[in-house]
Amino acid sequence: MKTLLLLSGGLDSSILLYYLMEDAGQEVTAISFNYGQRHSKEISCARWFAEDVGISHIIVDLPRLGGSALTEPAVITNVHQSEKIPHGHYEDACMKATIVPGRNMIMLGYAANIAIANKMDAIAIANHAGDHAIYPDCREDFIRSMRSVLSPLEVLSPFCTFSKKEIVNIGWELEVPFGMTWTCYEGGKRPCGKCGACVEREEALPSCSW
Amino acid sequence: MKTLLLLSGGLDSSILLYYLMEDAGQEVTAISFNYGQRHSKEISCARWFAEDVGISHIIVDLPRLGGSALTEPAVITNVHQSEKIPHGHYEDACMKATIVPGRNMIMLGYAANIAIANKMDAIAIANHAGDHAIYPDCREDFIRSMRSVLSPLEVLSPFCTFSKKEIVNIGWELEVPFGMTWTCYEGGKRPCGKCGACVEREEALPSCSW
Repeated sequence: MKTLLLLSGGLDSSILLYYLMEDAGQEVTAISFNYGQRHSKEISCARWFAEDVGISHIIVDLPRLGGSALTEPAVITNVHQSEKIPHGHYEDACMKATIVPGRNMIMLGYAANIAIANKMDAIAIANHAGDHAIYPDCREDFIRSMRSVLSPLEVLSPFCTFSKKEIVNIGWELEVPFGMTWTCYEGGKRPCGKCGACVEREEALPSCSW
Repeated sequence: MKTLLLLSGGLDSSILLYYLMEDAGQEVTAISFNYGQRHSKEISCARWFAEDVGISHIIVDLPRLGGSALTEPAVITNVHQSEKIPHGHYEDACMKATIVPGRNMIMLGYAANIAIANKMDAIAIANHAGDHAIYPDCREDFIRSMRSVLSPLEVLSPFCTFSKKEIVNIGWELEVPFGMTWTCYEGGKRPCGKCGACVEREEALPSCSW
């Protein structure tokens, strides 16, 4: 089966890459998106992983998405005011500022276009249960809608009901080089340790553990 | 209500523009997409219509979409072979070559992002019953999925169950300047008269009638 994996370069999608590669029947290609995220350095992590496992990697530069603290104001309209990335727990209400409206739909749409044009069978995304509280486009009903819309192309979401901790445990088993992933929303030189993404990562994968 | 309308510059979305403008409660903004379509000249028709009714018009340049006879091979992968635009009736099976996989999902995703970032209430699309035979992303169940995914943003699709002929009749009533719309998939100097889009238009709006 030929599968196009949305690979951000973060923890979940990088673990999903190794998880899919374990399945001998899978022929995986990776795709990453630059949508104006402050932490676009994650894309070079994605590239590292694609090279590590020896697969093709497509990078798509999209017009900047707005409406979110994760990006600078959208160049398209110049109306949205820039927001600071909130600090706190990943499931706190303040994390709603990190939603990028429409992002997963757009990324799955592009992945589907490329997958169908290249006669692939499936696209894969690493959304998980920890995303559900804040991000509507990571929930099961979103994936269900995408499946209905994109059929007969398959939409794989094997981590959809897993906790971050469970995903990390899979990563340990597969000996994923965690140190090469990028998680922090700030995109600074070092992880800030305070944004929701850093806090969630530290809970599932304490930095003292590896 | 603030609404962002997907305005291609073709017949249906141009009529929808005037239809929405008739509703005094509507504050309409238009958005058009360059996705590498051979008939990108439709975008300047969209611009003409936005200026005619005096509303803002956003043009988004997307990375070229592939997998379709409507576009050149996608620059992203260089794998898809270019196809010729098929001639015949809009509902013929050969018209499947004009499907652009994921296109409407991506366009609605971008429209939603901009609408939400700018605190608008709705996005609008002019899909109609004549599209249903060939284009999966014009059918009612597609619109239903988009509504479920983008809620609470509204997805307006007032022509979804209308035939092209019925839409044209609305256009006559609203005195839409049909001559400024662009329909032909070929995007040449003059409409080819042979592609599915031209054939369908001629059935609903015979060129001798206006």
